[in-house]
Amino acid sequence: MLYTVINDQFIPAHEAQLHVSDLAIHRGYAIFDFFKTENGKPVFIDDHLDRFYRSARFMHLEMIHTRDELKILIRELMKKNNLPNSGIRITLTGGYAEDGYTLAKSNIIITQQAIKVKPLNIEGIKLATYSHQRQFSQAKTIDYQMAIWLQPYMREQGANDILYHHNNIVRECPRANFFIVTQNNEILTTATDVLKGIIRKQVLSLANTGFTIREQDISLDDVFNCKEAFITSTTKNILPVAQINQHLIGNGKAGEITTALSKQLAVVIANNAEW
Amino acid sequence: MLYTVINDQFIPAHEAQLHVSDLAIHRGYAIFDFFKTENGKPVFIDDHLDRFYRSARFMHLEMIHTRDELKILIRELMKKNNLPNSGIRITLTGGYAEDGYTLAKSNIIITQQAIKVKPLNIEGIKLATYSHQRQFSQAKTIDYQMAIWLQPYMREQGANDILYHHNNIVRECPRANFFIVTQNNEILTTATDVLKGIIRKQVLSLANTGFTIREQDISLDDVFNCKEAFITSTTKNILPVAQINQHLIGNGKAGEITTALSKQLAVVIANNAEW
Repeated sequence: MLYTVINDQFIPAHEAQLHVSDLAIHRGYAIFDFFKTENGKPVFIDDHLDRFYRSARFMHLEMIHTRDELKILIRELMKKNNLPNSGIRITLTGGYAEDGYTLAKSNIIITQQAIKVKPLNIEGIKLATYSHQRQFSQAKTIDYQMAIWLQPYMREQGANDILYHHNNIVRECPRANFFIVTQNNEILTTATDVLKGIIRKQVLSLANTGFTIREQDISLDDVFNCKEAFITSTTKNILPVAQINQHLIGNGKAGEITTALSKQLAVVIANNAEW
Repeated sequence: MLYTVINDQFIPAHEAQLHVSDLAIHRGYAIFDFFKTENGKPVFIDDHLDRFYRSARFMHLEMIHTRDELKILIRELMKKNNLPNSGIRITLTGGYAEDGYTLAKSNIIITQQAIKVKPLNIEGIKLATYSHQRQFSQAKTIDYQMAIWLQPYMREQGANDILYHHNNIVRECPRANFFIVTQNNEILTTATDVLKGIIRKQVLSLANTGFTIREQDISLDDVFNCKEAFITSTTKNILPVAQINQHLIGNGKAGEITTALSKQLAVVIANNAEW
């Protein structure tokens, strides 16, 4: 049986509930973070906890646990659940608001689920662009209304994911960051008004292995003239992009630089899965 | 003891819970509506149910109950709870998503709470403006992240509520529509990209009692040059605005036209509280 943590209690996962007065249900007010475990070890956990605490602070959410207390809960949950390859999600909500509007004592939920690590999709995915700017890109909030609302549109376009743009600058996918490789072999990812992903950060750090990588706002024109494109996320690592709307990117398969970055990233992940 | 409806079950209100996999908690994905009962009769219930079904359809949420079935549940809840003057909230969520992302069978929650009908605040409230456009103004979703995030800012400004504006057009308050009375005694409320409130609709219908009222986008300049201003909502009916940022509106009290509209609206509400 799997367990879920709610506040300080370990509860059978299928019984893990919140009262309907929680501001997550009432007002969509909560933040979260999500990390993988591989072979029983969490990957980049300190980066994820850094961002979790930053999101909580930014959204004025009271954090009940210290970082060490939170790690103890996570460790205990991993022990009980015994899922070596998994995704762990920590959600912090606005709490049970008496008036349905004012922040109360936060509820924290920690869930763990088995996930399979998918091999690199060398064919590459198709993205459909959509004009949208997430309202709190500085924090990882639970607001995915636009992403879920766009699912029928995405299917109509025959796309695997959505690429948001705003004021002619490409932002991000709903659950992934976006990179291009220019004709000059520069690797770019938009600098502003995006959620800064943990794999994005790790890819940027690969600049020290000889790649030319930097944060720089990417226009739609840049995208349609690029040599390669890929997205990054905790579940996907690096995933090549073969097509955006009707434009083929490169030859429609993972480009050389994308493939080289993926290999480097795999080394970093293997070295960082520590506990 | 108060009851809450979850799907087709009447549950003691303090035990009304959703599993944490619901897309409301996971992705902030749900819609709702909220109406009052006065003396045991729901006010403008058909307008609220019209909007509830419109919101559900717009957000691709599967509606399980027909309108008649929903009315039977509401009637039964009102009977059990026996709260003649109350607020009833119907929430429809994205449901228990196995993958945490794809819409599932909706959960519906109906809660009822006692509310006091407040007398008209003749002193008028203070609003603080903030640049923001709600992402799905066509639907009454649970997304109030900006409103709740702004509460510390609102308190710093000594304001009672926030007035959103976007592209120089005034939109709405987080939970209320906004009206001005011009120097020519025209009553205006912004036409576009706002949630169309039920009291807003009723005020617009007062055009047939001799007022000059219409939907027309209101600029910030219009606001700072107006004679009177007020907000409308289900809980507040008509509430005069005395100050916006540092600008006093009129003499800082309810203006003549605002007061006259309030009296007319009270008549309409009394006549419409039917079951």
